[in-house]
Amino acid sequence: MDNKNKIEFSPVGIIHTPFDGKEKIPHQGRFGENNDGWVEVFPEFAEGLNGLESFSHIYLLFHFHQSADYSLIQITPRHHQTKGVFAIRSPRRPNGIGMTIVKLKRIEGNKIFFAGADMIDGTPLLDIKPYSTDIDSYPDADNGWLKTIPQ
Amino acid sequence: MDNKNKIEFSPVGIIHTPFDGKEKIPHQGRFGENNDGWVEVFPEFAEGLNGLESFSHIYLLFHFHQSADYSLIQITPRHHQTKGVFAIRSPRRPNGIGMTIVKLKRIEGNKIFFAGADMIDGTPLLDIKPYSTDIDSYPDADNGWLKTIPQ
Repeated sequence: MDNKNKIEFSPVGIIHTPFDGKEKIPHQGRFGENNDGWVEVFPEFAEGLNGLESFSHIYLLFHFHQSADYSLIQITPRHHQTKGVFAIRSPRRPNGIGMTIVKLKRIEGNKIFFAGADMIDGTPLLDIKPYSTDIDSYPDADNGWLKTIPQ
Repeated sequence: MDNKNKIEFSPVGIIHTPFDGKEKIPHQGRFGENNDGWVEVFPEFAEGLNGLESFSHIYLLFHFHQSADYSLIQITPRHHQTKGVFAIRSPRRPNGIGMTIVKLKRIEGNKIFFAGADMIDGTPLLDIKPYSTDIDSYPDADNGWLKTIPQ
């Protein structure tokens, strides 16, 4: 049984954004403005982008590299609710994996230009996945405790 | 510049599913039947589940622990299309991070019961995130090359 063993990943690129400090990051990229970013996929992985240009939205999975610790229970920054880390999208997680759906603008070689950045400039990219409405869109999902906060 | 450095994660739980071999895994959990599963969150992380029970859908992020290698260009198994790894959801990825949105049934202590499993039994859990329609649902997204395959 080796399930508790360490798992090692290496970045496949770097995400460039206008946000050069944590305090400048918008709450969620989807609703922000002036949040275009671009991904520099390391040249040795660029071939893996083939076909990605046909999608309008993509998942960026990345490392919250500036979050050194985590708490299981956290106070949400905007609404001051006390929640477990798995019920919020905080960067201070046991495994610091960030995930943002961004709007794809264009791909040029190993560069992906997108809108909807909400990560810090220089964030290590772990993975990219295409967004499919068939498997990823649940417009009628119950937003849980998020329903209780003012829009 | 340490962006190319290794990043180390450890499982926070184990995902139990009816699929004890790769060949038994359905293509996507959303459309399958008899695909209930449960997550055993390690007790030391159970407190982090607080508030998760209020959501109808959650992201499970996990390690494709039985995928030892990857290819940048792959042939899709069902439709035999040649695509880059970042344009498909294949388990054979540079960083073997799997992501599935599942339907939450109930949480009992450190156990999460869900429908929509499409991972192998015993899969190491890396993270859980709540699904929010506001930031995760794009019903009008363009499904890219997936549009061209028969439903």
